[in-house]
Amino acid sequence: MADTATPTSPAPVDPASWTCPAPLHDQPVVVMGHGGGGALSAELVEQVFALAYGNATLAALTDSAVLHLGSGPGTARLAFSTDSYVVRPLFFPGGCIGDLAVNGTVNDLAMSGARPAFLSAAFVLEEGVELEVVGRVARAMGAAARAADVVVATGDTKVVEKGHGDGLYVTTSGIGVVPDGVDIRPQRAAPGDVVIVSGPVGLHGVAVMSVREGLEFGVEVTSDTAPLAGLVAAMLAVTPDVHVLRDPTRGGLAAALNEIARASGTGVRLAERAVPVPEPVANACGFLGLDPLCIANEGRLVAFVPRAAADAVLEAMRAHPQGTGATVIGECVAEHPGTVVVSTALGGTRVVDLPLGEQLPRIC
Amino acid sequence: MADTATPTSPAPVDPASWTCPAPLHDQPVVVMGHGGGGALSAELVEQVFALAYGNATLAALTDSAVLHLGSGPGTARLAFSTDSYVVRPLFFPGGCIGDLAVNGTVNDLAMSGARPAFLSAAFVLEEGVELEVVGRVARAMGAAARAADVVVATGDTKVVEKGHGDGLYVTTSGIGVVPDGVDIRPQRAAPGDVVIVSGPVGLHGVAVMSVREGLEFGVEVTSDTAPLAGLVAAMLAVTPDVHVLRDPTRGGLAAALNEIARASGTGVRLAERAVPVPEPVANACGFLGLDPLCIANEGRLVAFVPRAAADAVLEAMRAHPQGTGATVIGECVAEHPGTVVVSTALGGTRVVDLPLGEQLPRIC
Repeated sequence: MADTATPTSPAPVDPASWTCPAPLHDQPVVVMGHGGGGALSAELVEQVFALAYGNATLAALTDSAVLHLGSGPGTARLAFSTDSYVVRPLFFPGGCIGDLAVNGTVNDLAMSGARPAFLSAAFVLEEGVELEVVGRVARAMGAAARAADVVVATGDTKVVEKGHGDGLYVTTSGIGVVPDGVDIRPQRAAPGDVVIVSGPVGLHGVAVMSVREGLEFGVEVTSDTAPLAGLVAAMLAVTPDVHVLRDPTRGGLAAALNEIARASGTGVRLAERAVPVPEPVANACGFLGLDPLCIANEGRLVAFVPRAAADAVLEAMRAHPQGTGATVIGECVAEHPGTVVVSTALGGTRVVDLPLGEQLPRIC
Repeated sequence: MADTATPTSPAPVDPASWTCPAPLHDQPVVVMGHGGGGALSAELVEQVFALAYGNATLAALTDSAVLHLGSGPGTARLAFSTDSYVVRPLFFPGGCIGDLAVNGTVNDLAMSGARPAFLSAAFVLEEGVELEVVGRVARAMGAAARAADVVVATGDTKVVEKGHGDGLYVTTSGIGVVPDGVDIRPQRAAPGDVVIVSGPVGLHGVAVMSVREGLEFGVEVTSDTAPLAGLVAAMLAVTPDVHVLRDPTRGGLAAALNEIARASGTGVRLAERAVPVPEPVANACGFLGLDPLCIANEGRLVAFVPRAAADAVLEAMRAHPQGTGATVIGECVAEHPGTVVVSTALGGTRVVDLPLGEQLPRIC
């Protein structure tokens, strides 16, 4: 998931007069949570980047920016997205940093309804890393690109001294084309929308954690990393009027749904029992005191769809390999605007907050 | 400068059967020179990335890839480029990593004749870096973007633990639109072309080195970092038939000219005395045993222009703020194809090789 900002974009202040704001969350320095996709990340984007860049596009942006090139009737609407990948370790059950970097950017483009077309890949290599490792990562990127039907069109390589990296970091950017008639963005969530998730949640986060921390949870958990553009195309073939799409990566479902609730000024109501949490994920979360709603996914999407189209969209999702586990998990409501509430199994309700940081750093 | 590959692209081998080739230059691991923009970089792109990604686009690419979106008469030709920036220190005389990252990608786009339009910015921050530093870099990016008339449209932020970065790394990607009738690429260099450089060379490399190594060369040398898209537009207004443009960044003029000579199969002949090397750069190179032709520039371009248009192009360049020091430094010849030769002040000639790596690591 690329940087996002809540809809309260900063007042138009002259960037030249900008000074470092009061320490963000009382932090004068960067902490791990600034990269976690939660409240600290949002503050950094709003208070530092959006203001410094001096434009509203960034403040309004979701997983990818939708750009208009040229003017007139032939104007192309492009989706443009970027993400850096620093996942540790480089290889984990179900994938590696290479396919993650391709799928992640493909998915960010797909979340605006775009058909991904071209990627770039920029490496920061650490002196001393085996070329064999670089080659394995590059091959994984190539295979993932072919699977997602995108072309890696350009790239760059820098090298930093041993001790100033962690094997390799890679940044992918992507360009896609938004089909006519499609307008997918978090602001479009509306009361009456049905909230659908495309499959079980929490697998990526738990898979990475299991190898990093040497934990075992009964069965091996593999990452869900996968490209979602095909699934999105299948959904749009049913109706172009999908309101919102989001891939719940860093910060999990909790972060994705909070951002949508805030951007649209609507409420989101989830049924806890409806959220598909695989048993090993539930066990791992229980063991470690984590909330499955906050665990990162890399091959899932959450969709806000008008009620009238929901059954047909759900059917199309289930017929697609990436959506066999699609299920309704909640609805968009007029009550408690900007807030996500979950009905628990015991009949109570609780508020699901935007996580402050990420429970598991360097998950992608 | 983004990754480039020499025209001898690898044979179409099935990527699935790829194994790590015989150690590149006998190096089984990544060395600093793999990021230097010279022969080691080219080997890495050809033998690892281009093959793994399984497409010819990357093998043929220059500073940016020119892409066709859609089909038919309304098709847009887009330039797409990416570069990671790891310069050390973050701030140096004349600029910082922020404006360098904007200007570098703007220039890569401009080198295909494109009008830069949108940028992305992805940060890898090191835990513990002051937010004040991040803010200063972001402001420099905003100012540089406004100066170059591009919009920073999307971004991302990741954080790595203290000791796994170097303050911050940033990756910018850019999209530009290539005007109709423009076809600028290294393959188009042809005997008879005049070789023009837009101003004095070596300032960026020496400026960074001076602060990093604590050296002084009589006067303070400041980086030439600057956006070149305006200069390119002024040149194209004279003639759309500019054959080649290149910004001689890592590896300097030597790398840029060698890549053009190899891609086009022509020879390049330089007059050593014609190359504008400022005195502090000459002094620094003499002192350190470096070749000014191999020093990185971040606000210069080299152009191959048909002889008939050269005078008019030169005049337009000199009338532009970024081209006041433009001068002819050589010509493209049919002799010694693929090779760059310089006529020395003493009347002899010497071959200018593609540098193996970069004399000064982490210069951009």
